[in-house]
Amino acid sequence: MATSRFAVIAGAGAGTGAAIARRFAQKYPVFLLARSPDSYNSTVEEITASGGQAYGVSADISSAKDVKKALDEIEQKVGKDASCAAALFNASARPAWKPFMDLTEADFDASYAISGKGAFHFAQATIPWLLKDAKNGSPEYSPTLIFTGATAALRGSANLAAFAPAKFAGRALAQSLAREFGPQGVHVAHVIVDGIIDLPGSKELLKDAGPNAKLDPNAIAESYWYLHSQPPSAFTHELDLRPFSEKW
Amino acid sequence: MATSRFAVIAGAGAGTGAAIARRFAQKYPVFLLARSPDSYNSTVEEITASGGQAYGVSADISSAKDVKKALDEIEQKVGKDASCAAALFNASARPAWKPFMDLTEADFDASYAISGKGAFHFAQATIPWLLKDAKNGSPEYSPTLIFTGATAALRGSANLAAFAPAKFAGRALAQSLAREFGPQGVHVAHVIVDGIIDLPGSKELLKDAGPNAKLDPNAIAESYWYLHSQPPSAFTHELDLRPFSEKW
Amino acid sequence: MATSRFAVIAGAGAGTGAAIARRFAQKYPVFLLARSPDSYNSTVEEITASGGQAYGVSADISSAKDVKKALDEIEQKVGKDASCAAALFNASARPAWKPFMDLTEADFDASYAISGKGAFHFAQATIPWLLKDAKNGSPEYSPTLIFTGATAALRGSANLAAFAPAKFAGRALAQSLAREFGPQGVHVAHVIVDGIIDLPGSKELLKDAGPNAKLDPNAIAESYWYLHSQPPSAFTHELDLRPFSEKW
Amino acid sequence: MATSRFAVIAGAGAGTGAAIARRFAQKYPVFLLARSPDSYNSTVEEITASGGQAYGVSADISSAKDVKKALDEIEQKVGKDASCAAALFNASARPAWKPFMDLTEADFDASYAISGKGAFHFAQATIPWLLKDAKNGSPEYSPTLIFTGATAALRGSANLAAFAPAKFAGRALAQSLAREFGPQGVHVAHVIVDGIIDLPGSKELLKDAGPNAKLDPNAIAESYWYLHSQPPSAFTHELDLRPFSEKW
Repeated sequence: MATSRFAVIAGAGAGTGAAIARRFAQKYPVFLLARSPDSYNSTVEEITASGGQAYGVSADISSAKDVKKALDEIEQKVGKDASCAAALFNASARPAWKPFMDLTEADFDASYAISGKGAFHFAQATIPWLLKDAKNGSPEYSPTLIFTGATAALRGSANLAAFAPAKFAGRALAQSLAREFGPQGVHVAHVIVDGIIDLPGSKELLKDAGPNAKLDPNAIAESYWYLHSQPPSAFTHELDLRPFSEKW
Repeated sequence: MATSRFAVIAGAGAGTGAAIARRFAQKYPVFLLARSPDSYNSTVEEITASGGQAYGVSADISSAKDVKKALDEIEQKVGKDASCAAALFNASARPAWKPFMDLTEADFDASYAISGKGAFHFAQATIPWLLKDAKNGSPEYSPTLIFTGATAALRGSANLAAFAPAKFAGRALAQSLAREFGPQGVHVAHVIVDGIIDLPGSKELLKDAGPNAKLDPNAIAESYWYLHSQPPSAFTHELDLRPFSEKW
Repeated sequence: MATSRFAVIAGAGAGTGAAIARRFAQKYPVFLLARSPDSYNSTVEEITASGGQAYGVSADISSAKDVKKALDEIEQKVGKDASCAAALFNASARPAWKPFMDLTEADFDASYAISGKGAFHFAQATIPWLLKDAKNGSPEYSPTLIFTGATAALRGSANLAAFAPAKFAGRALAQSLAREFGPQGVHVAHVIVDGIIDLPGSKELLKDAGPNAKLDPNAIAESYWYLHSQPPSAFTHELDLRPFSEKW
Repeated sequence: MATSRFAVIAGAGAGTGAAIARRFAQKYPVFLLARSPDSYNSTVEEITASGGQAYGVSADISSAKDVKKALDEIEQKVGKDASCAAALFNASARPAWKPFMDLTEADFDASYAISGKGAFHFAQATIPWLLKDAKNGSPEYSPTLIFTGATAALRGSANLAAFAPAKFAGRALAQSLAREFGPQGVHVAHVIVDGIIDLPGSKELLKDAGPNAKLDPNAIAESYWYLHSQPPSAFTHELDLRPFSEKW
């Protein structure tokens, strides 16, 4: 690879993950992790077509074994000397909106497998690369690890008793890592995405609410890029993103 | 059993769990859940000796199967008509104080197994009994479900990247349940215990700090009882407990 | 006076203030501060009639001069050796529910005069007495300073741009004092009262919502008393109070 | 003036205020408010010298009369048709670090006069211009109102009992305005600046801590600009800024 710094995105399916990948591909080769090639293929093609470098890697982020295999795959491609400029954790289970007594253990596990355990695996996989990047002196932008959160990372709600604990866990992980690795030069941040994201699947939602009532994935991606661009003298560790018209 | 209302305590080992059991045994038959009889035997004996009713139940709270078995055991004892006045979740894994890259998946799982999954199982097991109690009209004190939290439920910290996510998850669960079951008459609360608890095992800590520098387990138990005693017109959903001299 | 420990309540008008006064009068002589005797007269009579000791003191809590005068009045009554067991700040301006551009400087000042400045004056007036009480060794209950807060102390809202800043300020003051005077033995706490209080003036509100949908002032008062009764090994610094059926 | 959109900065003295003014002057004519010309003169000259448009306006932000006068002055310059693209409130009293009982009423008032009342006046003065800008359709960047906060806006501390209430009040105001004016197209945000700002006056602080241990005012200014640049589909309402090495 031409450059020795790369970015890796977990949860790089359509929507926010794809937008983040496109944004970071303007600067770095990007690795898109998702469970199946269906999730990343079109984005990889799109980035490649527009002159960027993008690679899809299939992995179930909740599986240590899968993540290890994905790491090896990336390392083979980037070589021993490469370092990670940005690791972006955007994976999330779908919220199981159910009365608590209808939740199964599998529902509870499913959220946690991604937002808790998956975030843990992703961080353990990428932090050595991020630390290496910090040691290299990060000529331009500091190495950055960002976690996508949600309102459910800040407050529990009726019918969200599986999803909220997992999102809270992800926020706790982000804070813990920010406090441990910030002083070592790695910028760790947590982003609270609050609102409906404007995707093909959410077309019918808020459709009479006028423009900008839903979150534009590219606007979210731009904020991730902004976090990455912050100099070490002024890191942001948490910010919220919501449409101007959102109630909160 | 003489009375049809009972209390159940998970994590009823020495210390806070035992103190909570003793406090609630002044009013109700109490069931003490812990992994092994070594944890509850002496408390059961002590309560029995002083005229209360106490029963030990062995269960690994993180195991759905174990919790189900414990439930059956309790139900056999209390009968079909009984209802739960207070369910008190005091179980917790020991924090694995380690740099993040030294944490194993097992460390991460161990905290979550108790504070996340264990809390989930305990809530699913006890809520039907608590709802039944609410329907009975709770002549005196409202049915109450309390979770023991910690400072790590409010903020992540370096070297606490396994413990904090699990404690955050427990808090999210408590909030979600409070919002779902409060309107049905079940009082759900989360208690932030911040400081060193005064136990045989913590004797050497803060030993020159004078009296009251550590949390008295009986004082914690008294606060749980107070929460239970609140009328439905003024429920508390979260409170902190810390020694007067604690920095925070 | 028979006892050397007393309690003082600011904002001791009808409702919560009166309920707090009645509760603390079960144990201590109580001084009721309010702008006019109309606010405290009936409560003073009621307490006296039931065998307690109660004294009304007229003062505008936002005025340093008035507060100083009130202090002198109390000191004359209690004598040089007395100490304060509980100082309870329950004063509050009415929220000016208005669009921001309709707020006058006077609206903004009015909230702050009570919840900010008034709380400051009250704390400066009572802390020397509370510290004296702490030095005396507080044979039973620790000297306690409690501030009544509201949901608007936790989040700003449209149309509450005068009230929320004042309530936030009161919470900041409570936290600052808790951290400064806790280690000196004074228990400082902030209570978030969230919901409609059941008063003659709120009769028409939620009238079809069934029992306990509004906060019973006596239940609030009981929680203040509970805070006062906590031993120094386990102080609570903040708790919320809301009806079981409240959305939050 | 050539353009009809302008920016106004309160607390535009040396340091952060000056950096913000320089940043926004790259795009807009900027008005610098400060109590005395000494605070803004050199920045006005610097901006002018580099081809920007900058105007100093003397005003005590805590005085309604002064703010009104400043408004008239600005309006004369910009004309009736102009609108405000960005209003940036960076004024703050110096924290009075004192034990609570040493604080005077004047200390308490001094913090509030700026962070509470001053913020209120500034918002009332600029919101009509910001709303007008929103109605104009904001071809590029949404009209933005930003308040500079501090850690003391999030937690009270011993010896900060005058400063913290004022900073909490400022945050409450920002939240209230965000919820009221966001849906009308005005982006309101609050920035938590946590750490020592790198200024001539802070030269001796952290001087052995290496590079980036203090906040670079230009980095803060860049974050304000970033907030201004966010599209209405993804507004940030609060972010923190701290040096990578800061403990928090």
